Amino acid sequence: MPEILHRIGAKNSSPEQAYEALTTLDGLAGWWTEKTAGSTEVGGVIELRFEVGGFDMKVIQLDPAKRVRWEVVAGPPEWIGTNVQWDIHQNGEFTIVLFRHEGWREATEFMNHCTTKWGTFAVSLKQLLETGVGAPDPRDVRISDWH
Amino acid sequence: MPEILHRIGAKNSSPEQAYEALTTLDGLAGWWTEKTAGSTEVGGVIELRFEVGGFDMKVIQLDPAKRVRWEVVAGPPEWIGTNVQWDIHQNGEFTIVLFRHEGWREATEFMNHCTTKWGTFAVSLKQLLETGVGAPDPRDVRISDWH
Repeated sequence: MPEILHRIGAKNSSPEQAYEALTTLDGLAGWWTEKTAGSTEVGGVIELRFEVGGFDMKVIQLDPAKRVRWEVVAGPPEWIGTNVQWDIHQNGEFTIVLFRHEGWREATEFMNHCTTKWGTFAVSLKQLLETGVGAPDPRDVRISDWH
Repeated sequence: MPEILHRIGAKNSSPEQAYEALTTLDGLAGWWTEKTAGSTEVGGVIELRFEVGGFDMKVIQLDPAKRVRWEVVAGPPEWIGTNVQWDIHQNGEFTIVLFRHEGWREATEFMNHCTTKWGTFAVSLKQLLETGVGAPDPRDVRISDWH
């Protein structure tokens, strides 16, 4: 099945910091969207809202400083039932974060859009880890008419 | 087979301008890498060099203001024989550019990296079309230890 992959590396950070940015409301609000609410525990649902739309992520797996896995339980029809997974490791001076959004049923133009948009948010996460300031919605990078 | 998709939209541009940015040495040097040489005609080979490595793209198809297709004939082993296709159309005020890098034999960590990096270059192309100034290598967005 089609999937979206990304990889970023942050200098002067750590797997623990990357994990925190992915598993706390403050962390998520620092690179993804300021309108983040809900529960980040396993079984909890994180509610993410954007200028255009939003989605709910159910937390499926938490492996501290290593892996975070979500299931999309609300949002665009194409996203429902898909999974987002983050894998973290240290490589020399860099904290590497691997991203995978899997379970897409087909590769539509919306998937093109989401790939580019996820990429800008991955770079935003890197910026947050390196400088303390990311580019979450509504200060996110605009890529097109689809936001 | 795994593939990489992207989508950007540029305001105050046109399909003709997007096509020019993808099919002239000056255009490519404005968003991708300043070290661009070779021939951009069908059957020609475009040589793109970066601070780290580079690749040669054979031009397979040119459909003015609509489609550009390349075959990778030199570069990283994972890229040889893969194809890159750009499709352009106008959607209201936005010139939409769809990107597809297809023919990957497997989804390795290098594909994660390339997806994110292609995304930053797609945004660079958007910036070039909208403002006249992109972020080509060596002024490109650094995403990790892999450049």
